[in-house]
Amino acid sequence: MTYYQELDAILFDLDGTVWKDFTLIDGAAETIRTLQEAGKRVIGLSNRGTHSRTQIAAYFQEQGIHWEKEDIIMSSYLAADYLQTHYPRLPVWVLGEAGLREELQEAGLTLAAKPEDADWLVISLHTGVTYHDLNQAFRAVIHGARILATNQDPVFPGKDGLQLDVGGLIGAIEASTGKKTDIIVGKPSHFMYQKVMQQAGSEPEKTMIVGDSMTSDIAMGAMFGLRTALVLTGNTTKEQAAISSIKPDLILPSIKELPFA
Amino acid sequence: MTYYQELDAILFDLDGTVWKDFTLIDGAAETIRTLQEAGKRVIGLSNRGTHSRTQIAAYFQEQGIHWEKEDIIMSSYLAADYLQTHYPRLPVWVLGEAGLREELQEAGLTLAAKPEDADWLVISLHTGVTYHDLNQAFRAVIHGARILATNQDPVFPGKDGLQLDVGGLIGAIEASTGKKTDIIVGKPSHFMYQKVMQQAGSEPEKTMIVGDSMTSDIAMGAMFGLRTALVLTGNTTKEQAAISSIKPDLILPSIKELPFA
Repeated sequence: MTYYQELDAILFDLDGTVWKDFTLIDGAAETIRTLQEAGKRVIGLSNRGTHSRTQIAAYFQEQGIHWEKEDIIMSSYLAADYLQTHYPRLPVWVLGEAGLREELQEAGLTLAAKPEDADWLVISLHTGVTYHDLNQAFRAVIHGARILATNQDPVFPGKDGLQLDVGGLIGAIEASTGKKTDIIVGKPSHFMYQKVMQQAGSEPEKTMIVGDSMTSDIAMGAMFGLRTALVLTGNTTKEQAAISSIKPDLILPSIKELPFA
Repeated sequence: MTYYQELDAILFDLDGTVWKDFTLIDGAAETIRTLQEAGKRVIGLSNRGTHSRTQIAAYFQEQGIHWEKEDIIMSSYLAADYLQTHYPRLPVWVLGEAGLREELQEAGLTLAAKPEDADWLVISLHTGVTYHDLNQAFRAVIHGARILATNQDPVFPGKDGLQLDVGGLIGAIEASTGKKTDIIVGKPSHFMYQKVMQQAGSEPEKTMIVGDSMTSDIAMGAMFGLRTALVLTGNTTKEQAAISSIKPDLILPSIKELPFA
């Protein structure tokens, strides 16, 4: 009996674990299908706020993986869910991409017509950002909007090395307005944890999180008592994992080895 | 005898004092000419890093004001002067506008071909900034470039209200790289003070600084023992001036009243 057979649910981080730059990591499709066919709850989770769940489910369908939209928890969705739950009537301004707007609108939230009208500014990564976009977000905040960030990662691995992530955009708004971000919904927050566990419907001790980041994936697992597996296909090397104060239960070369661990 | 007749030199802040959005404030041309004709040293100084001294002198010429390029001290020029004095051989990457590049090149500095090659990143306001620009600056810093900022003003008054200033761009780079700005050359720094006084060739007690900002113009004057005149055509209202811990020697409605003060 392999390790994963004791589990009811497996939570997969996406960037650096399942794909890299939207190219599936070798063995990802087979691992996900094997787990699904064995009757496990398989949940995807990501701090990415750039895309909607619909977009990501469609991407997986093209790759031959059937994954229900509801089983893919992106930070864009968490942002929409948080605002819809607590502030359903308040207009929102977005510093981010189309997928984020899609989630907010699908949740029934109102996108403000002008930054001055917004009560919340939602910040996520926007690799097409311009001065105008930054200035509009700035205007929202100086006119009273509070700040929700999908995540606060400072960098992400791009095609040509590290790239400036949403942390940089948050820095621009905080430094110019003198205001701080009110809420960050992405990993390792309890917002992400509660939402994935509600969707997984499993007990923490029967749930494993698989990811490439010690500070978001493995940290979240350790914080909430999940089993944890680090894969070495993304942010973290074996050497970095060895000196970390948090220890994952498993360290695997990649997602491919999971069914045999 | 009016107040200004006791002075040898008058230092004029530009934005909000001499012009607003490059439209001369009523009476500015007459005041500057009156002082020049009375044999005073008249110096312009600005935290703006967007333009070169050549560009600003040409602008004044068009407005009927003859002002030697050398008598206009912009923070773009201070950046170039600082790097040329202390690090003349080190390649520079620019997050800023064409006028800043012009000053750096005029000072004989080398602009790096790639961000990875730069030893200094110079940050200034760039109202055409894109994600690509921010990411290139980010790359310079993660590959070892130190950070010089022309100024750190968080906001400036634009046509439609306050706008995000260079402070926001600095925030983006600091938050994403985890590095702090090494040097800020603009007001109220001693870099600006020394350069304008060297150009004015006058004693502090015979020099007046005229500006609209308590925190940069009047603060610099107070710090170094200059006479100070606040004008109410820019950043500061009479009410704000009244509650400030720093007191200007004069408070004038605008530059127009200076010769009669």
